Amino acid sequence: MGEFELLARMRERLPPGGPRLLLGSGDDAAVSVPGGATATSVDALVDGVHFRREQSSLAQIGRKALATALSDLAAMGAEPGEAYVALGVPDDVGEEDCLELLDGLAELASATGTSLAGGDLTRAATLTLTTTVVGHAPSPSHFVARAGARPGDVLALTGEIGGASAGLLTLEQPKLAAGLGAAIATRLRERQLDPRPRIEAGQALAEAGATAMIDLSDGLGGDARHVAAAGGVALRIEAAALPLAAGVVEVAAAADRDPLELAVSGGEDYELLAALPPERLEKAQAMVGRDGLSLTRIGEVRGGEGVEVRLPGGALLKATGFDQLG
Amino acid sequence: MGEFELLARMRERLPPGGPRLLLGSGDDAAVSVPGGATATSVDALVDGVHFRREQSSLAQIGRKALATALSDLAAMGAEPGEAYVALGVPDDVGEEDCLELLDGLAELASATGTSLAGGDLTRAATLTLTTTVVGHAPSPSHFVARAGARPGDVLALTGEIGGASAGLLTLEQPKLAAGLGAAIATRLRERQLDPRPRIEAGQALAEAGATAMIDLSDGLGGDARHVAAAGGVALRIEAAALPLAAGVVEVAAAADRDPLELAVSGGEDYELLAALPPERLEKAQAMVGRDGLSLTRIGEVRGGEGVEVRLPGGALLKATGFDQLG
Repeated sequence: MGEFELLARMRERLPPGGPRLLLGSGDDAAVSVPGGATATSVDALVDGVHFRREQSSLAQIGRKALATALSDLAAMGAEPGEAYVALGVPDDVGEEDCLELLDGLAELASATGTSLAGGDLTRAATLTLTTTVVGHAPSPSHFVARAGARPGDVLALTGEIGGASAGLLTLEQPKLAAGLGAAIATRLRERQLDPRPRIEAGQALAEAGATAMIDLSDGLGGDARHVAAAGGVALRIEAAALPLAAGVVEVAAAADRDPLELAVSGGEDYELLAALPPERLEKAQAMVGRDGLSLTRIGEVRGGEGVEVRLPGGALLKATGFDQLG
Repeated sequence: MGEFELLARMRERLPPGGPRLLLGSGDDAAVSVPGGATATSVDALVDGVHFRREQSSLAQIGRKALATALSDLAAMGAEPGEAYVALGVPDDVGEEDCLELLDGLAELASATGTSLAGGDLTRAATLTLTTTVVGHAPSPSHFVARAGARPGDVLALTGEIGGASAGLLTLEQPKLAAGLGAAIATRLRERQLDPRPRIEAGQALAEAGATAMIDLSDGLGGDARHVAAAGGVALRIEAAALPLAAGVVEVAAAADRDPLELAVSGGEDYELLAALPPERLEKAQAMVGRDGLSLTRIGEVRGGEGVEVRLPGGALLKATGFDQLG
């Protein structure tokens, strides 16, 4: 089967596109009718760097590729629109494997209202998925950028953190999960292998008046620094307030690591960190909570620069990433 | 230097974005204000598959990555808007190399009015550039898809063909260029290494009333088949009418190949093939000619299916690609 035949089989499996998509995969370009403003992001996932084929099913890899891209749209408060996936396929990934990857992509696309509108298929030395996502809003002012946090704003975090990092540790050293219940161990691995973008929460936070927002891909400490730098402000995070995922404390203990390190320096949780005027927090919590997701106040925006983490004893740590907290 | 520092250096070198781009590289997503309709296409270029680092400068590779993506927008008649480039970088490609790649991208972006609006940077086993381009039009009806050719339409081709294929032959076997003047030999190599998208011609053909359009990436025979299949029509191409690039006949002779094979089955010319009502041809030729580019009538649309090439002696060949013509 050649490239064109495989592409035809892949097209047959695509879920129907949304109303914005007038012409999907198969022409020179996809044609869509955007909203008044678009947010566009590109994310490349490479085998051995962002996932490992021996740890993930191909469907999980497909879902993760779309999830990490959509997480950037969530952090803008955008409505998901179209996704375009360029697939680089090594010789040992066959046609059925490509279809399984696509099924994973299509599953999350359907669940999030994203149209798989096109892409590319090429040979490559390692399995690579490069996903471009386009999100929509009625006007540019509906989007929430990284800049915009103001002194006096509170910092709010969706969901729980440290789970993806703890999950990765248990994937690399299964004995670290020995003290966990099966459900918690599974959940930690899924946080690493099968992240879900916080799309509704992002839209809710935008609507509730978030002044700045970012998704946690590199880790809370590093991503908070991006928000501080973009806004020309300082962020103070209260370590005691951080919502740790269930099992993080146990895995950290088994690995002789500080759970705070996993929470602050561990990446790939794909939760949202937002700055909000304090009077907007309650409304935001109610809106985010509609989907059963928590929104935790974890600190505040101050004058100055950089990010500091206040430990339970009162000491302040400059959050510069893994090393200083490790 | 880490990823963030390199990204910061790359951002400094980006040419200013166009008026549609409100927020460029550096946030979770780029924010732009689209036209009434967008055309979006993704193209991945992999070292050893689509280019060879030993044959091309890094600036040429950067330009080619953007050029091949923009060629798809040209084939829609779209106005170029934004480009997003995901760069997969192997260990032996350093920071200065990345900046040279970017300079090539930026040069063509500036020349075509394209905003380099974002992207991604990751490690990879081989150098890979995945480029997503977004083009604009006032409404979806301004775009020209592959479908739409009607029996009675004429087939028109911009520029000259066979040059990229002949250029590749001379790159692989320099002695094949021995009989050519230096300027022609250089031009053939540039057709292969440094293609230019026919953006203005695509917009002119759309405005002149093209009913179907495609860019020649796979080769005239194969790309014509896409137009025939999408429109449910047959295409007849007159071999004698094909505008061969200077030097193609000589290189084909030196390589003991048929020049028609290079013209019909050789890919990567990135010229545009359009179907037009006959009464629109003259206007289209005048509009395309404004930029000094030729528009040649090379055949016609008929009832039926498939593509046939009429040889100078009158015999008909089914164009199914390289094999039957080789």
